[in-house]
Amino acid sequence: MNIVITGGAGFLGVRLARALLAQGTLSLAGAAPAPITRLTLVDRAAPPADLLKDPRVTAVTGDLNELLEEKRTLALVLPTNVAIVFHLAAAVSGECEADFDLGMHSNFAATLALLQACRALQTKPMLVFASSLAVFGDSPEQPCPLVIEDHTLPTPQTSYGIQKFIGEQLVADFTRKGFVQGRNVRLMTVSVRPGKPNGAASGFFSGMIREPLAGLKASCPVPRETPAALSSPALTVAGIIRAAEASMSDWGPRTALNLPSVTATVGEMAAALERVAGPAAIALIDWTPDVVIQKIVKTWPARVNAVRAQGLGLLPAHSFEDIIREYVRENPDAVTLPIRP
Amino acid sequence: MNIVITGGAGFLGVRLARALLAQGTLSLAGAAPAPITRLTLVDRAAPPADLLKDPRVTAVTGDLNELLEEKRTLALVLPTNVAIVFHLAAAVSGECEADFDLGMHSNFAATLALLQACRALQTKPMLVFASSLAVFGDSPEQPCPLVIEDHTLPTPQTSYGIQKFIGEQLVADFTRKGFVQGRNVRLMTVSVRPGKPNGAASGFFSGMIREPLAGLKASCPVPRETPAALSSPALTVAGIIRAAEASMSDWGPRTALNLPSVTATVGEMAAALERVAGPAAIALIDWTPDVVIQKIVKTWPARVNAVRAQGLGLLPAHSFEDIIREYVRENPDAVTLPIRP
Repeated sequence: MNIVITGGAGFLGVRLARALLAQGTLSLAGAAPAPITRLTLVDRAAPPADLLKDPRVTAVTGDLNELLEEKRTLALVLPTNVAIVFHLAAAVSGECEADFDLGMHSNFAATLALLQACRALQTKPMLVFASSLAVFGDSPEQPCPLVIEDHTLPTPQTSYGIQKFIGEQLVADFTRKGFVQGRNVRLMTVSVRPGKPNGAASGFFSGMIREPLAGLKASCPVPRETPAALSSPALTVAGIIRAAEASMSDWGPRTALNLPSVTATVGEMAAALERVAGPAAIALIDWTPDVVIQKIVKTWPARVNAVRAQGLGLLPAHSFEDIIREYVRENPDAVTLPIRP
Repeated sequence: MNIVITGGAGFLGVRLARALLAQGTLSLAGAAPAPITRLTLVDRAAPPADLLKDPRVTAVTGDLNELLEEKRTLALVLPTNVAIVFHLAAAVSGECEADFDLGMHSNFAATLALLQACRALQTKPMLVFASSLAVFGDSPEQPCPLVIEDHTLPTPQTSYGIQKFIGEQLVADFTRKGFVQGRNVRLMTVSVRPGKPNGAASGFFSGMIREPLAGLKASCPVPRETPAALSSPALTVAGIIRAAEASMSDWGPRTALNLPSVTATVGEMAAALERVAGPAAIALIDWTPDVVIQKIVKTWPARVNAVRAQGLGLLPAHSFEDIIREYVRENPDAVTLPIRP
C-alpha cells in the first residue's frame, strides 16, 4: 500500500509516519490489513533522519501548491497507485490571521488543488483531511453553544477556521461525486506538542508545559479561567488513523468528525503541571496577557461532546495530568526538572 | 448611489433591478435613503428593453469570471464608487449536478474572484450574496432535521448546495476581515417564476403552475406528497432588498439568513391551481416521475422556521394560492385559462 502524507515533516505528520511504519500495515476502510510498502512525505522541510532511513519512505520537498502545479512533481506527490492521502499540510491559525492571502493559498487553494489531483487519478483514493476545532467560533454576534455536538453549526471566527471549514465542504462534495473517498477529521488543541514553538495561536497550550519541564521560562497569554479542548499527540494520531481504517458504515456521514478531547482551563493545566513537576515548574510561567492571541483563542469552544468519535472507539485522555506524564515518558531528553511520581 | 447586480439579466436580477429603479433610492445598511444614480447589470445575456431604456442602467455582457479577469472589463463590472453588489449570478442546481466543473467555475471561482475584486477596491462595498435553501440536504447517511432553524447545520447533497455554502463562508470571512460588508441570504424555492423553463432542478415547481395557466402541458416529476418551501418572486426580491437595507444591528450575524417560505406539497400546489383555474388546469399536469430530478429535490428540506427573517419584518405568503393569484395579476398575458375569483 502506497501512502502519502502532506505536511509529512511537520510535528503531526512525523508522528503519523512513525506510527504507520511501526504498525506496518493499514486496514483501509475496514478492508483486510495490507502492508505499507511506500510512504511519501510531502513538506517544505525534509523529514527527520529516522524516517529518511526507512526504505519505505520517500521525501518530496517543496511548496505543496507548486508541487501540484507541475506534471513532473505532481507525479512524485501523488503516484498513480496511491491508496490514501493524509492531508495535514496547512498554514497555522496565527499566520492565517496575520496574512489572509497566505491562508487562502496554503489552506484553501492547496486543498482544492490536491482534491483535483486526486480526482484526476480516477482511482478514488482515500483522503483524510485534518480539519480543526477552530471551525467553531464564538463572538458576540455569533454565539457558539457552550457544548459542541456532532451536528453543531460551525461559525468560524478566524480565516484559518473558515479555510478548514471550506476544505471540509470540498472534501464532502468530491466524495459524494465519487472523485475521492474523503474523510474529514477535526483535530482538537494538541498538547503537549514537543519541539519548538510555531505560529499557531494555540502554541502556548504546549509551550506553557513543555518549556517549564525543560527548566525554561514560558508564557501563558490568556487568563487562568480560559478553558481548552485538549488531546495528546498520541491520541490525535490514533484518531487520524482510525478515520482511515473505519469501515464505510462505521464511519458514517461526510460531515466532519470531532475527535475526543479533555477539557481543562489553563489554570487547571498549570495545577496539573505542578502535580507532575512541582512549584518550580509553574514558577516559570509568565502570565502576561497577549490580546492578539487572546482574541483568537477565546473564540474557540472548549467542551466537545464527541459522541460519533466515541462510537468509533475513540476516547479522550483521562486527565490533562495523564497527558503531561505521557509527554514526560516520550520526551525524557526534553525534561530537566525532577518529576513527582 | 452606484449599484451592481450580477446575473442582472436573469429572472430575479431583472425583477430586482425593476424594483430598485421603481423605489428610486436605497437605504444602505440603515443609512438615510440615497438616490440610485447608476445600476450596472452584469450578465451573459442582455437585460430586457425596459431596463436598457432607463438612463440609470448600464449593461455589461459577458462571462463573469472572464470579465473579472481583465482590468478593463473589471472596471466596467465594478466601478470604483460602487456602493453595493447584489451577487445573483450562478449556474443552477441541475446544471451543477450534471457538470461539476461548470459549477466550480461559475459559482465557486466567480464568487471568490468577485470578493477579491471588491476587496481590491478598498472601499468596503456591501455585497449581498444570494445563497440557497439547497445548502440544506437530507440523505440516509446525513439526515436533515424536519424543520430548519436559523442555526441548523447545512449538509448539502448537491454540488450547487456545497458551492453556495462555500460562498457563504467566503462572504463571512471577507466581511470579518473588513474587505466587504457581506450579507448572506438563502433564497427559498421561487414559484411561480414567469418565462421559460431553465436548468434548475426546481424548475417544475414553477412550470407545473405556469404552463397550465397558459393552456400548456406541464410535468411534475415528483410524487404528490413531495413538500417544498416556497416563496413568490416579489417576496424573494423584497427579502434581498431588506438584506441590503437592514442596519448592522438589525442584520446580526454573518451566518446566512433563511428567507421566509410557505410549505406546500406539490399535491397541495396542484389543488391550489385547481381553485384558481379549475380542473382544466390540473388536467394539463403530467405526473410522470423523473428519477434524476427526484433525487435532487427530495434532499431539500421543506419546512423552515425563519425566526431571524421574521425579526426583520420578512413574512411568507399567506398561502400558495395567494402566490398563484399574484402570478396571474402580474402576468396577464401569460394566462389563457379563465380564472376563478
